[in-house]
Amino acid sequence: MVKQARAARTRRSLIRAAAEVFAEVGFVPASLGTISERAGVSNGALHFHFANKSMLAEAVEAEAAESIRRITEAAQARQGDPLQAVVDASHELMSALAQDVMVRGGFELAGDIARRVRSPLREEWQRWVEDGLRRAERGGVLAEGVSWADAARVVVAATVGLEVLGAKDASWLSHQNMTRFWELLLPRFADRRHLRTLVCSGTQPRTAVPAPARARPTHPDP
Amino acid sequence: MVKQARAARTRRSLIRAAAEVFAEVGFVPASLGTISERAGVSNGALHFHFANKSMLAEAVEAEAAESIRRITEAAQARQGDPLQAVVDASHELMSALAQDVMVRGGFELAGDIARRVRSPLREEWQRWVEDGLRRAERGGVLAEGVSWADAARVVVAATVGLEVLGAKDASWLSHQNMTRFWELLLPRFADRRHLRTLVCSGTQPRTAVPAPARARPTHPDP
Repeated sequence: MVKQARAARTRRSLIRAAAEVFAEVGFVPASLGTISERAGVSNGALHFHFANKSMLAEAVEAEAAESIRRITEAAQARQGDPLQAVVDASHELMSALAQDVMVRGGFELAGDIARRVRSPLREEWQRWVEDGLRRAERGGVLAEGVSWADAARVVVAATVGLEVLGAKDASWLSHQNMTRFWELLLPRFADRRHLRTLVCSGTQPRTAVPAPARARPTHPDP
Repeated sequence: MVKQARAARTRRSLIRAAAEVFAEVGFVPASLGTISERAGVSNGALHFHFANKSMLAEAVEAEAAESIRRITEAAQARQGDPLQAVVDASHELMSALAQDVMVRGGFELAGDIARRVRSPLREEWQRWVEDGLRRAERGGVLAEGVSWADAARVVVAATVGLEVLGAKDASWLSHQNMTRFWELLLPRFADRRHLRTLVCSGTQPRTAVPAPARARPTHPDP
């Protein structure tokens, strides 16, 4: 049992170290020597757990995909309103990209053209955003003349852009940035009556900031 | 003179071949052997022109930067209206990313975190979009309550996202995609009276499509 727990811990350290190295330099330049050294384990231990670098990359992507799934499922479960759920999840995604090396490493791998495998990460995010906005349209909360597909395209393109820009300059990932994004877009996306109920800064309490300091205006008038 | 012309042609073939390989696999996995072979020249000829892979990458980026500069300067010279100039240049950028391997290779290098050098390409695009929208705000053509900085952030994030998504799936770069993007955003960005003068599909004749087939609605009502 102790041995099993130790093996699980070693595996975990290796995945985390790999995520860090992938996030820093990308897949091809990442060396297994650097990863095992950073994880504080021997090369032999690394090869006991992972036959090659691709398997480590898959493990990082699986962890990142799991985090994104947790974020989107939580937003959806908490929010009856699918448009607010998309707003909330986008904030959580930016926060995860800024703070969670596993998510950052996973997205870096997803964008790496040198890897010939199809990464599901961005596609899953896209599908989830599309589903949410489709439900928003069906629920009659999108503005007249705005289609879920067009709104989704802008949200997906912009969030992928923020992710990529944020890898070199973290200020793109700030909560304020994402809030201003929604302050600009929601008055166009949402039905006018529905707009008043939406919170551009997200409805989720943010762990880094104490609750009383979080009071924000919900949205500007359109 | 003949010798000089041949040297210039060889140099040009090498830069083009390098752009193709960088666009396909990224900087680190790109091999000089593949590049010289694709250019149809010897390794010796490659090393006569470029001391190393970084110098080839710089040459590709310089070409791409020059293309972007041509696109933005032409849009600005043609258009008195800075907001329409941003619309036009965004269409040209997508078209260049879809059709010009030098631009695609340059942007791929710009996004490569394994390269430790600062690439000016995305920053120049960002600066140009910001300048254009700042002038639009000063000229009173932005909608009330919309700041140039917020509009620029959305345009830059979304165009970078489209560029990155387009590297794996070219349909993101389509003219229709960019047109729908502006059909969604301009009614929010532009002053209502000014909106009627804007052409979401761009004012520049498109080479790939014969002129009569290009009739498009300018924009939906807000």
